[in-house]
Amino acid sequence: MTDLPPIALARWTSFHVGGREVVVQGQPAREVTFTPGGAPALIDANGTYLVGGMYAQAMEPAPKRGTVPLMLWHGGGLSGACWETTPDGREGWQHFFLRAGWEVVVSDAVERGRSGWMRIPEETGGVPVTLTLENPWERFRIGPGTPQEGRVFDGQQFPADPASWRHFILGCVPRFTTTDDLTLAAYGALLERVGPSVVVAHSQGGFFAWRAAQEWPGNVRALVLVEPASTGLMEKVAALAGIPVLMIYGDFIAGDPRWPAIRARGIAFAAAVRAAGGHVDVVDLPAVGIRGNSHMIMMDRNSDRVAGLVQDWLQGLGLCA
Amino acid sequence: MTDLPPIALARWTSFHVGGREVVVQGQPAREVTFTPGGAPALIDANGTYLVGGMYAQAMEPAPKRGTVPLMLWHGGGLSGACWETTPDGREGWQHFFLRAGWEVVVSDAVERGRSGWMRIPEETGGVPVTLTLENPWERFRIGPGTPQEGRVFDGQQFPADPASWRHFILGCVPRFTTTDDLTLAAYGALLERVGPSVVVAHSQGGFFAWRAAQEWPGNVRALVLVEPASTGLMEKVAALAGIPVLMIYGDFIAGDPRWPAIRARGIAFAAAVRAAGGHVDVVDLPAVGIRGNSHMIMMDRNSDRVAGLVQDWLQGLGLCA
Repeated sequence: MTDLPPIALARWTSFHVGGREVVVQGQPAREVTFTPGGAPALIDANGTYLVGGMYAQAMEPAPKRGTVPLMLWHGGGLSGACWETTPDGREGWQHFFLRAGWEVVVSDAVERGRSGWMRIPEETGGVPVTLTLENPWERFRIGPGTPQEGRVFDGQQFPADPASWRHFILGCVPRFTTTDDLTLAAYGALLERVGPSVVVAHSQGGFFAWRAAQEWPGNVRALVLVEPASTGLMEKVAALAGIPVLMIYGDFIAGDPRWPAIRARGIAFAAAVRAAGGHVDVVDLPAVGIRGNSHMIMMDRNSDRVAGLVQDWLQGLGLCA
Repeated sequence: MTDLPPIALARWTSFHVGGREVVVQGQPAREVTFTPGGAPALIDANGTYLVGGMYAQAMEPAPKRGTVPLMLWHGGGLSGACWETTPDGREGWQHFFLRAGWEVVVSDAVERGRSGWMRIPEETGGVPVTLTLENPWERFRIGPGTPQEGRVFDGQQFPADPASWRHFILGCVPRFTTTDDLTLAAYGALLERVGPSVVVAHSQGGFFAWRAAQEWPGNVRALVLVEPASTGLMEKVAALAGIPVLMIYGDFIAGDPRWPAIRARGIAFAAAVRAAGGHVDVVDLPAVGIRGNSHMIMMDRNSDRVAGLVQDWLQGLGLCA
């Protein structure tokens, strides 16, 4: 990392978009002492809440070569920080695409990270899902068993040593499963604010990316879906006809209990988009000689190599000089 | 903003520090479908959780002039994003101190922002405090009444037009009042990882900054406390003898129901630190001709002017070339 030249940022800001007002009435006020030795404050739970806003950070490099901004939408249980570094401390895809000359917009999905979760359980129902150290080891296709046992699949690219794994889990955040409508609306507000963009999305973010492209096709110039967790709506495939799509899948899928079905649904949806006149490229990384990728491709040791494949594809579309 | 030159970052990363393991047993597993059309996954609530970790983002400018890193610790109900921009879209103190040549470390406190809140309610008790659009208007000394009424104190520097206020509230996040021990421990881990630093802290962050300096004085080169919500421990004032401290208070305090008492306790604590051989400078901004500041000084329209005062003080200590 120290060998890389500095990144010059011509502009860099963050903002929150979206959110709707929810008025609460009839609740008792309570006295809260926020800090030991502070003065108690009366906190009135009644009033106007802003629910469903979303944090985004926009960085514009100098010089800029991308013709439109490039957005990075994270997956479930994570925040935008997953693009900012890797569990073993290398530069993330946020750096990669800035270095390639893109204005990069990283967001934290609704109810996660810096977006906050104001009244999410009250308004949307559901309980948060929080992850143990053990849970994602098999689910993200690192290896069989548990991180304590430490067995990884042959050729595993995810940095799965104990310190890196612990660091990865520290970066996970609670998430709800009842906020899809709010989240989609906030991504719409983000696209509206930033304007036509390339959307690079991972896992759950891939679901929102498909859906956002169907709802606001004029604001999506290309979709890059890294192991999308789900598809768009079959009845709206026609909306995707003008948007080039790249789908990327990693390794170790055949032996997984869930990913063959998830991938098959993705491939079927891609076929439907093509039948409606769209263009979808599907890259199974092992088929092009890139082996060992977990579900967390942007964190794997070969993350820059896969980002390079994405960059080549985007340049092929003429979206980056 | 567009007139400012680019910021060159020689190095920029983020990481999570701290956290302790909590093992949960005897809970039922539940099936979760994370994404519509996804494959259900069995989520076993039993296992090892990492509780109390903290996110931090470290940016090192080129050229660098600060002799040590400068940390920005936010206050209650906010995340580190409060240093990244202002409600009216200007550059934040994160930019100001990077432009001044400091390596700047911005953190999200435990259970807020990108630090996540894994099992916080279960382990620490308490319920989260979430803020309405109305609540902070008076409490942060913007004006009397409500933001809907829109009256501000004469000369108010906070950008309190409806759009900016809404943007400010969107950036607020739920917080607990039962996590002080975890948070202090995580700040200790952050200081340990980054090494001796200047700590600039706002409001609730000021409480943690006093306490962290008392616990780990070797890792704190100077303290800048912007309207600290509370003090350190009186029985440990001696630990602060070698650490220069600057305390800053804004305007409209005399007429506030809470701030005269909070400030008075801060002044009394400063006197005790001085009596123990320490050095504390107190600046009431109106007394030096800087008027109109709310509690959110780093977001006020004159935020760069106050940051300049901080920078001059740090340069006076020889901490920045």
